[in-house]
Amino acid sequence: MADSLSIGILGAGRIGKIHAENIARFIPQASLKGVVDSNLNAEQERWAKGLGAGIVSRDPRDIFDNPAIQGVLICSSTDTHAALTIAAAEAGKHIFCEKPIDLTVPRVKAAINAAAKAGVKLQIGFNRRFDHNFRRIREYTLAGEIGEVQIVRISSRDPAPPAPAYAAVSGGIFIDMMIHDFDMARFQAGSEITEVYAIGAALIDPAIGRAGDVDTALVTLKFANGALGVIDNSRKAVYGYDQRVEVFGSRGAAQAENDLPNTVKLSNAGGVTGEKPLYFFLERYKNAFIAEMNAFVEAVLQDKPVPVSGEDGLEDLYAALAATKSLKEKRPVRIDAVRD
Amino acid sequence: MADSLSIGILGAGRIGKIHAENIARFIPQASLKGVVDSNLNAEQERWAKGLGAGIVSRDPRDIFDNPAIQGVLICSSTDTHAALTIAAAEAGKHIFCEKPIDLTVPRVKAAINAAAKAGVKLQIGFNRRFDHNFRRIREYTLAGEIGEVQIVRISSRDPAPPAPAYAAVSGGIFIDMMIHDFDMARFQAGSEITEVYAIGAALIDPAIGRAGDVDTALVTLKFANGALGVIDNSRKAVYGYDQRVEVFGSRGAAQAENDLPNTVKLSNAGGVTGEKPLYFFLERYKNAFIAEMNAFVEAVLQDKPVPVSGEDGLEDLYAALAATKSLKEKRPVRIDAVRD
Amino acid sequence: MADSLSIGILGAGRIGKIHAENIARFIPQASLKGVVDSNLNAEQERWAKGLGAGIVSRDPRDIFDNPAIQGVLICSSTDTHAALTIAAAEAGKHIFCEKPIDLTVPRVKAAINAAAKAGVKLQIGFNRRFDHNFRRIREYTLAGEIGEVQIVRISSRDPAPPAPAYAAVSGGIFIDMMIHDFDMARFQAGSEITEVYAIGAALIDPAIGRAGDVDTALVTLKFANGALGVIDNSRKAVYGYDQRVEVFGSRGAAQAENDLPNTVKLSNAGGVTGEKPLYFFLERYKNAFIAEMNAFVEAVLQDKPVPVSGEDGLEDLYAALAATKSLKEKRPVRIDAVRD
Amino acid sequence: MADSLSIGILGAGRIGKIHAENIARFIPQASLKGVVDSNLNAEQERWAKGLGAGIVSRDPRDIFDNPAIQGVLICSSTDTHAALTIAAAEAGKHIFCEKPIDLTVPRVKAAINAAAKAGVKLQIGFNRRFDHNFRRIREYTLAGEIGEVQIVRISSRDPAPPAPAYAAVSGGIFIDMMIHDFDMARFQAGSEITEVYAIGAALIDPAIGRAGDVDTALVTLKFANGALGVIDNSRKAVYGYDQRVEVFGSRGAAQAENDLPNTVKLSNAGGVTGEKPLYFFLERYKNAFIAEMNAFVEAVLQDKPVPVSGEDGLEDLYAALAATKSLKEKRPVRIDAVRD
Repeated sequence: MADSLSIGILGAGRIGKIHAENIARFIPQASLKGVVDSNLNAEQERWAKGLGAGIVSRDPRDIFDNPAIQGVLICSSTDTHAALTIAAAEAGKHIFCEKPIDLTVPRVKAAINAAAKAGVKLQIGFNRRFDHNFRRIREYTLAGEIGEVQIVRISSRDPAPPAPAYAAVSGGIFIDMMIHDFDMARFQAGSEITEVYAIGAALIDPAIGRAGDVDTALVTLKFANGALGVIDNSRKAVYGYDQRVEVFGSRGAAQAENDLPNTVKLSNAGGVTGEKPLYFFLERYKNAFIAEMNAFVEAVLQDKPVPVSGEDGLEDLYAALAATKSLKEKRPVRIDAVRD
Repeated sequence: MADSLSIGILGAGRIGKIHAENIARFIPQASLKGVVDSNLNAEQERWAKGLGAGIVSRDPRDIFDNPAIQGVLICSSTDTHAALTIAAAEAGKHIFCEKPIDLTVPRVKAAINAAAKAGVKLQIGFNRRFDHNFRRIREYTLAGEIGEVQIVRISSRDPAPPAPAYAAVSGGIFIDMMIHDFDMARFQAGSEITEVYAIGAALIDPAIGRAGDVDTALVTLKFANGALGVIDNSRKAVYGYDQRVEVFGSRGAAQAENDLPNTVKLSNAGGVTGEKPLYFFLERYKNAFIAEMNAFVEAVLQDKPVPVSGEDGLEDLYAALAATKSLKEKRPVRIDAVRD
Repeated sequence: MADSLSIGILGAGRIGKIHAENIARFIPQASLKGVVDSNLNAEQERWAKGLGAGIVSRDPRDIFDNPAIQGVLICSSTDTHAALTIAAAEAGKHIFCEKPIDLTVPRVKAAINAAAKAGVKLQIGFNRRFDHNFRRIREYTLAGEIGEVQIVRISSRDPAPPAPAYAAVSGGIFIDMMIHDFDMARFQAGSEITEVYAIGAALIDPAIGRAGDVDTALVTLKFANGALGVIDNSRKAVYGYDQRVEVFGSRGAAQAENDLPNTVKLSNAGGVTGEKPLYFFLERYKNAFIAEMNAFVEAVLQDKPVPVSGEDGLEDLYAALAATKSLKEKRPVRIDAVRD
Repeated sequence: MADSLSIGILGAGRIGKIHAENIARFIPQASLKGVVDSNLNAEQERWAKGLGAGIVSRDPRDIFDNPAIQGVLICSSTDTHAALTIAAAEAGKHIFCEKPIDLTVPRVKAAINAAAKAGVKLQIGFNRRFDHNFRRIREYTLAGEIGEVQIVRISSRDPAPPAPAYAAVSGGIFIDMMIHDFDMARFQAGSEITEVYAIGAALIDPAIGRAGDVDTALVTLKFANGALGVIDNSRKAVYGYDQRVEVFGSRGAAQAENDLPNTVKLSNAGGVTGEKPLYFFLERYKNAFIAEMNAFVEAVLQDKPVPVSGEDGLEDLYAALAATKSLKEKRPVRIDAVRD
């Protein structure tokens, strides 16, 4: 295979732009050939051409039908992910699809199957696995420094809630937000989740509660390897994006604290004050987005397994669906119960 | 009332000795008058006399019948707490009783009622409320710095497990160990626990599992004020006594890290290494034991409410019993279900 | 003036490459037009063309004589800086010159005068002023949070010493290494250095001592505004690049700690271990190199003063020469004594 | 020798009281027999008797002439230290003398000689050597973790300046305040100071300057073993007592940060804020005062060398005198120059 991967991007919104610019700047082994967005505007067109994309259009077929393009990035709205994944697979393209593949299990399975049938790579955009901090914890575990994992503890809090209306379309806090943490939990435990129990409340914005969702949630996890886990989510941490992971085991524990914009501490009569965490995911996971794209390109070029597979995305969705069910039914829910 | 409180101690084991020495050294407003232990040996006798105790015997009545003694500290084995509390109350003594009052609700209630009827103070030995770190968090909350409490997160891990046989008599991890954390959770939330859900496993020592207990546990909490909580316990953290609390709310979050024996960091080719946490509760809560005794003495001398009441002890027991039940029945359990 | 600055780079060594790639990737308002290196090899040529440079040659005149090029970056060896700066000024190019301009005062003055006469910008490459940590301290000072600066304290230690032979050509530790810290001290104090006193020794490598230099040095500073300062340098910190600054004043103090590759702490029986600092200047000052280049481009495009002027470079050189003299003569040396 | 040391204290001011109470509470191997203060008032008398002192008077001879007393603590004003040390030595008492022994070399030598001639122990009250943090650094050095010591860096800043009038009697900042740091520097370097250079200014209070002293000072040190050192002092750190030490060597570096009253960090929209350092020496060195007294008692009872000798006190005074001279004469001063 060529030593450079030609890529087309579907969706020129916030996340699509990040990937496009990362490919143009930081991934020497990939080149951006096309940008497609069904609502492409003049600004996006200018931007895409400025990055050197030869194909700039509103029609995905311009990508799919172009034999020079080997990989596609699906960065459009969630409801289009499954169909585009299937179409891309049928076109023989390797696929990087933003999370989640879909909000429903059958469509996720259909997308996975399409990729498998076509023999193309399918990587899902769980970027946090590529975070320098969380990756370091995993390395400690793999190196045996933690011993057997016994407890995984994740705090994941956003700086500001989305509009309440968003809850309706997003699938709710577990599918929209905590799905990242389910993926992190599985990654750190090195094992599948077997059961979840969820509690939650609308403590930040009653409108979120009226929309049928919660904005504050705690979920306990059981893993197949016997480990236990807990995730807490809040839609609003006034001090910024709070992203911490701890893995505790028989030989030690590893803890990742937040990243800060600088290390300065100001000491005065009021105390010793340091910076708040980096504001939100664009700042915090800036390098993780690059690393995940590098990993995708490398998996394709060297024909290696992708680091986050469609099956991973499916397992994460199961956990999110089980948590949603647990919250509603006020009881623990086994993953098998949503898997079937 | 006199400006000094005359105290007799029942039980000259580890915790009794700590309180006796603290009174002798650090509590100018109290004086140690008597030490009673049903198995008093020569070494204990010498020690007690060295501290200036005039009454040194094996018979609690030597304390109860002495009109010069105003307060008693019940530091004997748990199975004697309730009966001694009742006897002390009937003798008109103010009572400081180590936790737990008893493993059964009726006996706890009987002890509380006896104290109430006699009009004496009854304080329970939940020493962690007096810890400098956890107290500071509570002060922030009371000062409005946290806003409305939304999440309480507690990690509480021992450096080494007790003998498996201990599980049988201790009542298990929730009653023996996590009861401290239930008390801390209620203290920090400023609200009662209404429901718990527990998961756990014997990951450290299979013998603990065979004895019907777990050594690793995660419990989620719902509070009456709407806040959520989570506690994790492990019987064995190889790096020492891990005691951390975090309170997250609408205006901010406060986090207490472990205490260390010194602040030194060694930087070398292997990294930057600091000390492990203080080894265990004797080291970590050294000053908290003094502070709780001061609070008891002050409550009696100034006729103020005790900071940790018999009712607190009862609520903590409810939470522990509910967690025990939850673990066994694999479902969330409302506190009301064990209260009745 | 155009809204994009056309740049030519003289010198395609390590630092030249960094600037070239930063311009190509991160500075949208600048474009890399040419790369010249007197020893240009095939690899460099390929690299330069890959970045889009139209002019790739061994002759600086290809840059100087090209009217389309507005700014030049002088990244060649130190002994060529002054002559190239003068030639660039005479060609009417704005100049970014790596530090130091020269090791001798007259040539530095000649370069500064040439730029002044030609009316072009001259910025010197003291990249640390653009570091996120040190800049934050300065912001605190400018915001009044520090009050009047009383003490500036800088630790600056390299991970590994240069070859002893380097000492001969570099001018020694004060001119080669501590000059950065003199610049930082002036930046943080907001005042000129008036006197220095230096002590030093060859504690790491006797060969450095035999070459007439020291590898460990401490210099105290007096500033015109009354503040005091101290800088320590070591050529070899086994734990990596140690770059810390502290500013202490009448209203508070600000302290910058090292940057780490991640925030993870591993707790085990041996203690709690975090990462070493980022290895060396390429890692630590990665973003500072971009920020200084942005500042240069902005100064030219918007006709604003450069943030680090030729006069700054001259003052830093005075301090380094005075420290060299102080070490040799074992007495404090006033800056005026080397200025005249 | 007996397994308990009978002690008399001369001087019932602040520091005398601390030692008296520590002996009464924490040093089981010592007993407080007498308290003498030339200005003894009723409150002090009550306090001394409350601690069990049998001899409470205004006449040191009541201590010196009492054959039951083996050790004396000299805690009176500095101008009486030497004469009392000599009198105590002649009376055959072991001596713990607060720092400094005297402000003049001949009197210090006379006191040391008197103790040597009498064959009694003489320990000087440089309490910081017993601080848990600084001791830990020294342990790392002795264990070889630092390798050869190359740089010793000490920051030592008080929370509030003394009255300007104090400067006249105290001997100035180097003798009154930095003498502690000279002792720490020698302790950490494991070597004698051979030369100092001092700069300083009255930046906090002009009245201190008018009294002929400085309130902000920086002193560089050369040690006999080749290491370099630097100490900074300020009479006023608005954030409290700043006491930090760093030892840097060929194999690593150890750094002690300040002690804090608790570990809590408050995160909110303004940043992440922790506590200021413990306020002043009574809080910070509380345990160090106990440890130094334990060491004195142990040295006497077990006939071991004292950990801080009269010769140490003399060397520290030499450094302080040399720094005073350096500041005045604006040049480096060798210790030998003040030693002769």
